[in-house]
Amino acid sequence: MKIISGGVTAAQGFVAGGMHCGIRANKTKPDLAMILAKNRCSAAAVYTTNLVKGAPIAVTRRNIADGYAQAVICNSGNANTCNADGEQKAWRMCEIAGAALKIAPEDVIVASTGVIGQVLPIEPIETSAPVLAAVLSDDGSAMANRGIMTTDTVEKTCAVSFEIGGKEVKIGGIAKGSGMIHPNMATMLGFITTDAAISPAVLQKALSAAVQTTFNMVSVDGDTSTNDMVSVLASGCAGNPEIAESGKSYETFLEALTFVCRDLAKKVAGDGEGATKLLVCSVTGAADEACARTVAKSVICSSLLKAAMFGADANWGRVLCAIGYSGAPVDVNAVDVSFASEAGRVDVCVAGAGIPFSEETAKKVLSEKAIDILVELHSGSASAEAYGCDLTYDYVKINGDYRT
Amino acid sequence: MKIISGGVTAAQGFVAGGMHCGIRANKTKPDLAMILAKNRCSAAAVYTTNLVKGAPIAVTRRNIADGYAQAVICNSGNANTCNADGEQKAWRMCEIAGAALKIAPEDVIVASTGVIGQVLPIEPIETSAPVLAAVLSDDGSAMANRGIMTTDTVEKTCAVSFEIGGKEVKIGGIAKGSGMIHPNMATMLGFITTDAAISPAVLQKALSAAVQTTFNMVSVDGDTSTNDMVSVLASGCAGNPEIAESGKSYETFLEALTFVCRDLAKKVAGDGEGATKLLVCSVTGAADEACARTVAKSVICSSLLKAAMFGADANWGRVLCAIGYSGAPVDVNAVDVSFASEAGRVDVCVAGAGIPFSEETAKKVLSEKAIDILVELHSGSASAEAYGCDLTYDYVKINGDYRT
Repeated sequence: MKIISGGVTAAQGFVAGGMHCGIRANKTKPDLAMILAKNRCSAAAVYTTNLVKGAPIAVTRRNIADGYAQAVICNSGNANTCNADGEQKAWRMCEIAGAALKIAPEDVIVASTGVIGQVLPIEPIETSAPVLAAVLSDDGSAMANRGIMTTDTVEKTCAVSFEIGGKEVKIGGIAKGSGMIHPNMATMLGFITTDAAISPAVLQKALSAAVQTTFNMVSVDGDTSTNDMVSVLASGCAGNPEIAESGKSYETFLEALTFVCRDLAKKVAGDGEGATKLLVCSVTGAADEACARTVAKSVICSSLLKAAMFGADANWGRVLCAIGYSGAPVDVNAVDVSFASEAGRVDVCVAGAGIPFSEETAKKVLSEKAIDILVELHSGSASAEAYGCDLTYDYVKINGDYRT
Repeated sequence: MKIISGGVTAAQGFVAGGMHCGIRANKTKPDLAMILAKNRCSAAAVYTTNLVKGAPIAVTRRNIADGYAQAVICNSGNANTCNADGEQKAWRMCEIAGAALKIAPEDVIVASTGVIGQVLPIEPIETSAPVLAAVLSDDGSAMANRGIMTTDTVEKTCAVSFEIGGKEVKIGGIAKGSGMIHPNMATMLGFITTDAAISPAVLQKALSAAVQTTFNMVSVDGDTSTNDMVSVLASGCAGNPEIAESGKSYETFLEALTFVCRDLAKKVAGDGEGATKLLVCSVTGAADEACARTVAKSVICSSLLKAAMFGADANWGRVLCAIGYSGAPVDVNAVDVSFASEAGRVDVCVAGAGIPFSEETAKKVLSEKAIDILVELHSGSASAEAYGCDLTYDYVKINGDYRT
């Protein structure tokens, strides 16, 4: 498997693009994106578990119930959630995209992201969709990515190439997400494409499995959004024998898909609202995977630890504390904790108790942009990783006045 | 029932005090507190559910296993948690207090609060305990309160007087807690005294019940501390017929104890680290109390909502979002949301969808020091309140470099 460029248009058969349509006042910020496949694709998606769901989720769920879709339309600046006319507007977006792209509206995946509870103005989308449809290209991944961003500060894209049945297969994607990020079964917005030939049922199985250990292990602020969604379109253009069941080809595909999901998930975590650092909590030696995941996620979610990481303060007691309240059955007297980064590694806790360490070294390790929090439970061989970011002044600033 | 002064020494039979012993470098900050009853008291306590527990908790639990205690010793500046010699030091604190107060060390409730994982220096306590023991008085509640404070900015005290069986009975207490606050079954530190005559078993029952709807409904940052504890000592000096079973006297006592616990809990929430506002989420119309509590606590814990409240931004979509991911079975299309304060009330969401409201009025309402977030679920008659605070720059500042 090798990493390639091209994002959501890296796979054969896809074009994409983004533009400013006018939902946002700021004309320099694209707020509309489209992705189009040259044929109907196997389609799969995972969604937020929040009981309050964005209207686009209901419409997308209906549209891909048959296992197929051909395009994506997504706006930023307005979540189209908690609006009386939400589903009607979301369906209207599919009709607009279908007309502009000359495909059936039932084959459109629709998504919205932004403020909750403000009526979505449909006119800007109506006016701009035909314009955008005319400029979609296999070089349009970055513009599509910009079109779906809200408080994101960087584009999040990843693509890989690998082989199945002697054929080169590609998977690529784009993602957005910066605040209200604590996915559960699904996540922020992620749009992934592949040219693999794969049946809808197996594609869904692979996506659900990949999301479990990647997007679902991200938390920026503990708030599970109403509009989280990750979708995959598979065009089949690679010409591999169709993956229609478990086996070696499925495993190869799943590995590549998981790589793309993990890469996008880490990019989302590192660009969390106000974040200055990516935090990765690696739990090893757990009795089982569920325990490892619970512990890793509890650590990554601790506001106190997140603030300490912002201050490059090796306050490992907060790691122990978060392990202790995680709900996982852990022998807290067996736990080792270390911090690591490109600048080195510092062991701070052995068998549940502090050990002497150099504060100077710790400061150096924690001043890097990517920090590993290493937790060894000494009670088994299962492991998990969770992804988060530090808690900063800017998180408060961004969210103290998001709407205005 | 009437509110009185005197805090933890309001009830007959109690003296208290606090002083600087030297665990903290800052000599103007008291870091040691003691409370003494003139006789052995019925004693009850509730503790953190964190698997990582402060050493003092193990010792206190052992000491009051027989239902009785006579004194409290508590230091701030060091949590005596995750230390190899923790329990030994906690027990040593009981011996020191016992010797200074001329009581059995087994009758001492011991507590510590501060940084986790640093060895507790016992010498300052050894040296100062006899000095402190000599100055305990029935006017010493405020000094004891200061002795247990960490990042708290104000003292938290409450006392009430009421009647049982023709006798005047008093309950009073002090509390501390500002960060790492998300109690579960117990809370930050709260020390309550009463002169009621009440059996240990019934006292424990009353405390457990009172804590459930008060301290356990507080969250500052979602982090359940390792050292949370609330204890009650009942001296019996009021001379009422001993409360030894359920009934009218028990109900009267429970009501007063719950009042004191709620008052202290709200004071803890309002003084959350960096907080500028007390937030109270009142959920009504719930199918049952568990549902009401889950929803109220989810709303009060949302980092996004907390930041919005700091910015006086009526971003009610974040309330809906937090209700939706709470895990409680709620009909999200029936939910009404309003914000209220001394400056008035503004309805923002009816039946799960936004309604037009004056941003100017909303700003005025949300600029007060105490904000009510009113959630009506329209699915029953149960209700609950949860207590929290806004998320501010100062929370990040305080926790970005707490240890130094």
